[in-house]
Amino acid sequence: MDKINLGSTIPAYPMPVSLVGAHVDGKPNFLAVAWFTMVSYKPPRIAIALGKGHYTNPGIKENKTFSVCLPSEEIVEMTDYCGIVSGKKTDKSQIFDLFYGELETAPLIRDCPLSMECKLLEIVESGLNEIFIGEIIGTYTEERFLTDGKMDFRKMRPLILSQPDTSYWCLGEPMAKAWNIGKRYKAKRK
Amino acid sequence: MDKINLGSTIPAYPMPVSLVGAHVDGKPNFLAVAWFTMVSYKPPRIAIALGKGHYTNPGIKENKTFSVCLPSEEIVEMTDYCGIVSGKKTDKSQIFDLFYGELETAPLIRDCPLSMECKLLEIVESGLNEIFIGEIIGTYTEERFLTDGKMDFRKMRPLILSQPDTSYWCLGEPMAKAWNIGKRYKAKRK
Repeated sequence: MDKINLGSTIPAYPMPVSLVGAHVDGKPNFLAVAWFTMVSYKPPRIAIALGKGHYTNPGIKENKTFSVCLPSEEIVEMTDYCGIVSGKKTDKSQIFDLFYGELETAPLIRDCPLSMECKLLEIVESGLNEIFIGEIIGTYTEERFLTDGKMDFRKMRPLILSQPDTSYWCLGEPMAKAWNIGKRYKAKRK
Repeated sequence: MDKINLGSTIPAYPMPVSLVGAHVDGKPNFLAVAWFTMVSYKPPRIAIALGKGHYTNPGIKENKTFSVCLPSEEIVEMTDYCGIVSGKKTDKSQIFDLFYGELETAPLIRDCPLSMECKLLEIVESGLNEIFIGEIIGTYTEERFLTDGKMDFRKMRPLILSQPDTSYWCLGEPMAKAWNIGKRYKAKRK
């Protein structure tokens, strides 16, 4: 099949969406962020990329803390709302029922099946964005989202975003075991 | 519900998995990477986080190029294989049918519905990992993966990885419109 070059553009791949929390002007605030990734296993570190103009950035810089909360399908309306309105104009401190872990300025969302509180380690500027790298200090969930002590995505029901068609997707079914199914190919190759 | 603190640990969220390609010792090599994210919209930039010990890292540094290819469910065995065996011991240059875009040392996989060729901009050290930030020079797909000119995940069938239960998951169904369904919450709030 012939390949098409879409050019120097943002690619379309499905991304889990998060709600990033911080204290800004002394109040909790949240924005919807799909540009994040783990960057280190030990110690556990996560990176989030935010446009420089966001209301949240100065709050993270001031308090050197932020949170990354993973919403479920149940709160898709509120999640999307946090991506539509800016904290500059709208007070978003009352949308969610909040709790705190060890850090006093990393607001965590009770309705999210998974929430991480993070200590800011570094900021890397890249184009019009700032990459905030944080160490994960605490990871919060509930018994009802676990199976055999592990997070269960069937119970968690994460929201997956695709930007080009502006859609949230559900997660489907497990289809293969990782670090395992490749052994079949290994056997065929021999 | 009571929250449980899993501690300072790597969180469990579903991540799209990619095959990162580079020329190492003069040959194409690929490793499976789920730790990546967009970090800039204009110019389009992507970051990948790799453990420092990987065979691929010196190749990216030498040639200042890499690729990020998004595999589909069809090549799950080969994708997983690239995550099981290291290029240090195994020649992975013959697994896939390859093509190249503008960059001569960013190998692209014909069987992947989406492939990006990237020019290395910066390396950020973080713990035991290196974060490679690259500018996306070209994004390649095929007509058969598009609907109305946009990437269609139903046709692309991306692989989504969860680390804690070591599973690849399928993508489910679209469940809401992004930058839109939040308007319902906005209306309720007024």
